[in-house]
Amino acid sequence: MSITAAEGFLASGVHCGIRRERPDLALVRSVPRATGAAVFTANRMAAAPVIISREHLELTEPQAVVANSGNANAATGQRGELDARATAAQAARLLGLDTEEVLVLSTGVIGARLPLDRILEGLPRAASALSADGRDAAEAILTTDTRTKESVARASGFTVGGTAKGSGMIHPDLATMLAVVTTDYPLEPGEAIDFLRPAVDASFNSISVDGECSTNDTVVLLANGASCVARDDAAFAGALQAVCSDLAGQIVADGEGMTVLAEIAVTGAATSAEARAVARRIATSPLVKTALFGRDANWGRVLAAAGSAPYNGGYAGLDPELITLRFNGTPVVVAGTPQPVEPELAGTTCTIELDLGLGDGEAQYLTSDLSYDYVRINAEYRS
Amino acid sequence: MSITAAEGFLASGVHCGIRRERPDLALVRSVPRATGAAVFTANRMAAAPVIISREHLELTEPQAVVANSGNANAATGQRGELDARATAAQAARLLGLDTEEVLVLSTGVIGARLPLDRILEGLPRAASALSADGRDAAEAILTTDTRTKESVARASGFTVGGTAKGSGMIHPDLATMLAVVTTDYPLEPGEAIDFLRPAVDASFNSISVDGECSTNDTVVLLANGASCVARDDAAFAGALQAVCSDLAGQIVADGEGMTVLAEIAVTGAATSAEARAVARRIATSPLVKTALFGRDANWGRVLAAAGSAPYNGGYAGLDPELITLRFNGTPVVVAGTPQPVEPELAGTTCTIELDLGLGDGEAQYLTSDLSYDYVRINAEYRS
Repeated sequence: MSITAAEGFLASGVHCGIRRERPDLALVRSVPRATGAAVFTANRMAAAPVIISREHLELTEPQAVVANSGNANAATGQRGELDARATAAQAARLLGLDTEEVLVLSTGVIGARLPLDRILEGLPRAASALSADGRDAAEAILTTDTRTKESVARASGFTVGGTAKGSGMIHPDLATMLAVVTTDYPLEPGEAIDFLRPAVDASFNSISVDGECSTNDTVVLLANGASCVARDDAAFAGALQAVCSDLAGQIVADGEGMTVLAEIAVTGAATSAEARAVARRIATSPLVKTALFGRDANWGRVLAAAGSAPYNGGYAGLDPELITLRFNGTPVVVAGTPQPVEPELAGTTCTIELDLGLGDGEAQYLTSDLSYDYVRINAEYRS
Repeated sequence: MSITAAEGFLASGVHCGIRRERPDLALVRSVPRATGAAVFTANRMAAAPVIISREHLELTEPQAVVANSGNANAATGQRGELDARATAAQAARLLGLDTEEVLVLSTGVIGARLPLDRILEGLPRAASALSADGRDAAEAILTTDTRTKESVARASGFTVGGTAKGSGMIHPDLATMLAVVTTDYPLEPGEAIDFLRPAVDASFNSISVDGECSTNDTVVLLANGASCVARDDAAFAGALQAVCSDLAGQIVADGEGMTVLAEIAVTGAATSAEARAVARRIATSPLVKTALFGRDANWGRVLAAAGSAPYNGGYAGLDPELITLRFNGTPVVVAGTPQPVEPELAGTTCTIELDLGLGDGEAQYLTSDLSYDYVRINAEYRS
């Protein structure tokens, strides 16, 4: 149910022919007038739908989202922007909205022109199929995902629901991931971004599958107030955070070729930004990730990665004599001294806890291993 | 012959028992009094031999190098530094040198204590085996390498020769790579670093296999003047550069699991530093590298990587409307407009030429693909 779990939202997912057989076109709209916000990729090669959606958000409040899989409409030049705008215009016409009230999300192959005809032909069917069942929409935004990602949180009389896609190229500053979150909690115009940004930073921006940062990453929040509850902003922020973190966890758990889920916690950094840089470096290290795949508790690679975390044109602060490292719960280095132990690494989860002993900065990260299947999926699939 | 190609250098390589069967202990010394320099890893978790060698270089001119494979003596705390110093002291005693005149290089597993007894037992045999044949030394520094890396350049009456090891964790700012370069060209004490640093920047610091930056990376230059030629610094700089670039190319060509060698050239960046950031990001992108492995001319992934090149806490400058990209010689994007072409990608080499259209900054990078074998080697081998 996810994106239609909150009152007053409708969604649909249809097959319009961008992908061979799977649903590839999704529509989400709010029935009562909504307010909303979105957070986009930091990639300088932002895709056409990102450029157009940014424009639309500057002009008015979003009421609907159209999303397609199979084609990212990225690196497509001026033509791509015209195609994204035409998609929004067609959806707006069908829904009785202004073009600027529609956000456009795309995911799939980069560098190929969007098959606009198929989308324009599919949109009327998507509009007719709008219903209170969000599952088809959750299906239609998938690419190499093996399952849909949906999450719902209910609290104090209101609901937050969301769906996401993403399995490869998952990385901070977003990555090939899309997420649409809806709520019937009442927000005033302009407020949504203040709730969305911190929720995204602590969820989608703290996961990594392969260190890639995509051209299309977008997280949208629509809030229509249909619950008519009294404001309880702390409860709303908590529910929004819960949905975003749940979806982010589902994305990593569905990471391409993933066999181990690793939780990385860095504490004691000079600053939180440096903690984040170190956690990110560990989370994206091919050597750490292949060791995890091989179930090799090779904590030396964790330290080698930690020692080369890019930060502000140099490296994040680290003093080898102050570090303490626990690998899967076992202390392997204590205050700079290696311990004569061999930690266990079996099963499908792993914890890596690194204390730098320098200050109060801390950060968490979720990551997955690097397996044969990651290579197979990305060598064989043109994404 | 490599490191003994220049006049007045002796080398040896023996098996002392750190590795099961392969040679694992190398010794190189200059017979006439030498001057020298070294460039080390930027990793904050610098290994004990790096710490000790840095100390020694500050005190005097290096005359000999002892190198071992199988154990990196990294993340080994105070104990590791004592072990590295004991190694240098034993080598110095055998060669009639001061301890500070010996540099120590180690490569192999991180986080395990150096088997010092085996090294102390092996060093006398290594000293006895010193000869004008450098091949055993080139063998003894290998880890996952499938072949030795050797290079010699002769010019104007002098010789530069070198050997290197490295196949995984190859990356700018050095990586799990060691290189020893010797020359009989005459340099004054203190001069060697001014020749070595630019040669390293344009060679070892411009290659990437998997984006890792190791704890042990070291490039050593020893110059003993035995050729007695008149100075021709331009000729020497050229020969040194040629040897370093040749060795760097051999390292990438022996990249773990490597099936494609890709040359990346970025031009038209606002600055050379930004060109380098962009080239490095492309060279280390798992999605670009898996596409190369799959012989998929997936240039969209190149642009996605280029658009997210970390630079100075943000991203390197890039305007999608100004870029021109040639993939294996075929223009696929011209001044921001995608071309209706499908480049060919077959064989074992590939060129990626990206012009950003912003300024005069440029940089080159060599990289390899990401294959099943890379995963296998690093999941199975504890390095």
